[in-house]
Amino acid sequence: MIVLFTDFGVADPYVGQLHAVFAQYAPGVPVVDLFHAVPNFDVRAGAYLLPAYAREFPEATVFLCVVDPGVGGARAPVMVRADGRWYVGPDNGLFSVLANRARQLECFEIRWRPATPLSDSFHGRDLFAPSAARLACGELPEHEPISLVTPAWPADLAAVLYIDHYGNGVTGLRGDTATKDHCLQVGRHKLPYAKVFSKARRSGAFWYVNSNGLVEIAVREGNAARRLGFRLGTAVRWAKGRTGKKSRR
Amino acid sequence: MIVLFTDFGVADPYVGQLHAVFAQYAPGVPVVDLFHAVPNFDVRAGAYLLPAYAREFPEATVFLCVVDPGVGGARAPVMVRADGRWYVGPDNGLFSVLANRARQLECFEIRWRPATPLSDSFHGRDLFAPSAARLACGELPEHEPISLVTPAWPADLAAVLYIDHYGNGVTGLRGDTATKDHCLQVGRHKLPYAKVFSKARRSGAFWYVNSNGLVEIAVREGNAARRLGFRLGTAVRWAKGRTGKKSRR
Amino acid sequence: MIVLFTDFGVADPYVGQLHAVFAQYAPGVPVVDLFHAVPNFDVRAGAYLLPAYAREFPEATVFLCVVDPGVGGARAPVMVRADGRWYVGPDNGLFSVLANRARQLECFEIRWRPATPLSDSFHGRDLFAPSAARLACGELPEHEPISLVTPAWPADLAAVLYIDHYGNGVTGLRGDTATKDHCLQVGRHKLPYAKVFSKARRSGAFWYVNSNGLVEIAVREGNAARRLGFRLGTAVRWAKGRTGKKSRR
Repeated sequence: MIVLFTDFGVADPYVGQLHAVFAQYAPGVPVVDLFHAVPNFDVRAGAYLLPAYAREFPEATVFLCVVDPGVGGARAPVMVRADGRWYVGPDNGLFSVLANRARQLECFEIRWRPATPLSDSFHGRDLFAPSAARLACGELPEHEPISLVTPAWPADLAAVLYIDHYGNGVTGLRGDTATKDHCLQVGRHKLPYAKVFSKARRSGAFWYVNSNGLVEIAVREGNAARRLGFRLGTAVRWAKGRTGKKSRR
Repeated sequence: MIVLFTDFGVADPYVGQLHAVFAQYAPGVPVVDLFHAVPNFDVRAGAYLLPAYAREFPEATVFLCVVDPGVGGARAPVMVRADGRWYVGPDNGLFSVLANRARQLECFEIRWRPATPLSDSFHGRDLFAPSAARLACGELPEHEPISLVTPAWPADLAAVLYIDHYGNGVTGLRGDTATKDHCLQVGRHKLPYAKVFSKARRSGAFWYVNSNGLVEIAVREGNAARRLGFRLGTAVRWAKGRTGKKSRR
Repeated sequence: MIVLFTDFGVADPYVGQLHAVFAQYAPGVPVVDLFHAVPNFDVRAGAYLLPAYAREFPEATVFLCVVDPGVGGARAPVMVRADGRWYVGPDNGLFSVLANRARQLECFEIRWRPATPLSDSFHGRDLFAPSAARLACGELPEHEPISLVTPAWPADLAAVLYIDHYGNGVTGLRGDTATKDHCLQVGRHKLPYAKVFSKARRSGAFWYVNSNGLVEIAVREGNAARRLGFRLGTAVRWAKGRTGKKSRR
């Protein structure tokens, strides 16, 4: 299976051009559009979101990951093998959180180049997608070992990294690092924990651990981003305090 | 064929996770993203839209239908067999309009549970999708008979249930219940009938029976929602009156 | 391979209904959603964008192209064979730029009609998609020769035809007609050329030749449309002037 994870959006003609590559070079391999809404150019947000979504996929899955504001510049194209899965994309930090958390890790610069000339602005289509197609077909493109760039980023990121169409705010905090007695502070709001939507008060905001293991801010049948006024990048923090019977159930 | 009908949106990472389930558990079965833009949490809108879109699909199609604000709560997971097609999703009213109109109907609670733990917030991925995959492969997940919940909703819903990206307003009124001599009143506007876009006046709003059999409000090469000021949920009603030569052709 | 190019949007239920047709009538044929964001009803924009995106696809690709504001009216349904690829859609000018540029061209009116009645508003689903499916399966629907309509449009279109989700503006100017010494004037802004994003100044707007061969307006890691204030249809023009060392690197 090939899984796509990019900031290409779903309306533009970029994702379709990736699919055309796969239809030609990896015929019959299922291709899943997992996420094309990484915030534009935001390599760091992508780096924290990727391992959360990747962990549920079977071994041998090939991820094509492109958030690549430096396309055409000096950053290397890489293939990363982490815990049995392959990741193909630019070496700009996008794989650094994943690599930090991996139990098994091998990193390679892609030395292979296509026969046709590479565009200056769409290596996703011209280099990364064909490389991913070859990996999915069991071929290893020409490569050599590399050490990934390692930005000085924290283990978890206490900020809103994505706002979904319901208005829920996905953070870069892993749920298994969270203490359910604590409130999550977002701006001036202290949010209590709720296990499931159906247990939350209908009008109140809360935090919970989403189905990909990340701490998420939500309002039951409402739009949390509008209600609480957070945006992409808004910082959050754990807060003790009045999280008990009064403000939750 | 597996057909998806949800309020998950097309930008978020939820639909891709459904596809990943199908790639693993129903390999080779075509999966069609029919509609992921049911208005958020609006079970009733989904209930009236579903039968209109479903009717054109062949027998044996399996629909995965998820508009599930009560996920993690007491509502039952169900499989509904109506007129030869299967529908899988939550028993919260989403299948009630379909069931009312069906000539043949069988309803089952899904008793099967996956080996891996169920998330609290994404039964679409963890329970409904694998159940749909098994149905599409000719297996019947463990089940027992159930009576669906039956909200007290009318046979047709005289309101705007969806606004498409052209600005057309799709109502919950079936075209075969409509009288073409009548106007459709939307706010203070009385709209005449037109059979086809190319017959409508270029600047005028009209109603017609769309290609899925529902009454729809449109403006030729224009945005009806902006022109007429309607929104999701805006009520409509049939009106006699000046619908003749003067205001249409 | 069947490739879709429409103004249907990605959120509405129209694209899924096309896929359902292909799953039934061209099983196993890969279907690529290339572009569903042609500006609504804008046949001319589609006409200039289509050849840019089509050129990279292999021979024998079948394009389903629908921007069809006159659906249900007198315009003919056509199949066009240009440089080895097939194009199916309405004869309203959508194929005229492609046809002008083709080295080999054959044009046919589609005389075949489906057994089931044609809807008045969705020939994409009811006529064009089944025709494309048959072509993709090697069958030629019943047809007769036709001369395409030929709007009086220029060879290249000096205007913004599409704004992608990054805010980049795609024009109807082919890059191989451009002189890299020239500025591109957009409103009161004179933009210099840059070969790649990573060479552009981080804060400055520029023009470049995109990966589909069209002249595109961009800002490095920024939103050009918001920065420069252009919109769909905004005219551009080539300008001599101060494009040298001062304003670019």
